[in-house]
Amino acid sequence: MRVKNKMPSINICLVHYPVKNQNNQIITTSITNLDVHDLARLSTTYGLDCFYIVQPLNRQKELFQELIDYWKKGVGANYNLHRARAFHKVTIVASIEECLQDIGLDKEPIVIATGANIQGNIGYCQLRELAKTRNILLLFGTGWGLADSLIDKAHYQLAPIAGVDGYNHLSVRSAASIIIDRLCSKKWW
Amino acid sequence: MRVKNKMPSINICLVHYPVKNQNNQIITTSITNLDVHDLARLSTTYGLDCFYIVQPLNRQKELFQELIDYWKKGVGANYNLHRARAFHKVTIVASIEECLQDIGLDKEPIVIATGANIQGNIGYCQLRELAKTRNILLLFGTGWGLADSLIDKAHYQLAPIAGVDGYNHLSVRSAASIIIDRLCSKKWW
Repeated sequence: MRVKNKMPSINICLVHYPVKNQNNQIITTSITNLDVHDLARLSTTYGLDCFYIVQPLNRQKELFQELIDYWKKGVGANYNLHRARAFHKVTIVASIEECLQDIGLDKEPIVIATGANIQGNIGYCQLRELAKTRNILLLFGTGWGLADSLIDKAHYQLAPIAGVDGYNHLSVRSAASIIIDRLCSKKWW
Repeated sequence: MRVKNKMPSINICLVHYPVKNQNNQIITTSITNLDVHDLARLSTTYGLDCFYIVQPLNRQKELFQELIDYWKKGVGANYNLHRARAFHKVTIVASIEECLQDIGLDKEPIVIATGANIQGNIGYCQLRELAKTRNILLLFGTGWGLADSLIDKAHYQLAPIAGVDGYNHLSVRSAASIIIDRLCSKKWW
């Protein structure tokens, strides 16, 4: 059973629609199996409240719900208890709106868009401060990134992870891991 | 063509042998396709010198050399130039010894073992300092982690990434991303 933290909570959302392809068109992407594993394990390691997957296609939702149940309560749960625990964090929803409703509109989550090419208007220190008092929902895009309409609607746009020589083409698995570590890690520096 | 940085350099090495399985036996694991993509992109984003893959099985080496060449100079290079650039960082070797020889024994790289369950004897601030003057080779284990023999032979063991409630079961893709960010990121805090 999923246990929701008391306020304030941090949630992540992996978006498969609306996102862009390399020609800047709006598309729906397929769920990638390792995204689910990696981000579930990340969410559990850092004590996040929930890891949402936005996927409007019913067949995809059914397929991955089956996969999630396999690890939560099927053969996979006996094979790897740690994986079972991680998969309790995962919820598949059809839209961002459904994700916000699940968190609870009364909790007024602050929505933060992420992406390699967005204009950041909030930094990591500011976000750490904000997360002390407010519920946070971080949006991560698949494909070639979140649709502009989503980025525009978010409360903030997180400063991209800077690469060297202008290269910052991380996988969404890497980017989410780094961002959550910067946001949630106990002070190591 | 791969261009090696001048000293000091940071290199990562993804080890498929010798690593442990869940029964603590020494095994050889298969290469996971997304590990190659994610860690190549990570290495390029953070300006690392080289991303080594240790794999002693010839058939695996051939298969993944073909995959790497596809992205470096095959159809993949036309499809995604960023991916081509990232794959120039990747070198497959048969052993840690071959990896050390490729870096150059005269460069005396400091070998750092990583893992969720190791006793750390160096922290992230110390490692950042060390990397200013010395060449670094970070070892990441697949399967259930690096063999004890490898951990014992390394110069240092990096403090594990701390999770909440005793859970720190990150994928190697997430762990490597977080560790490289802690080691190489420009100061954001």
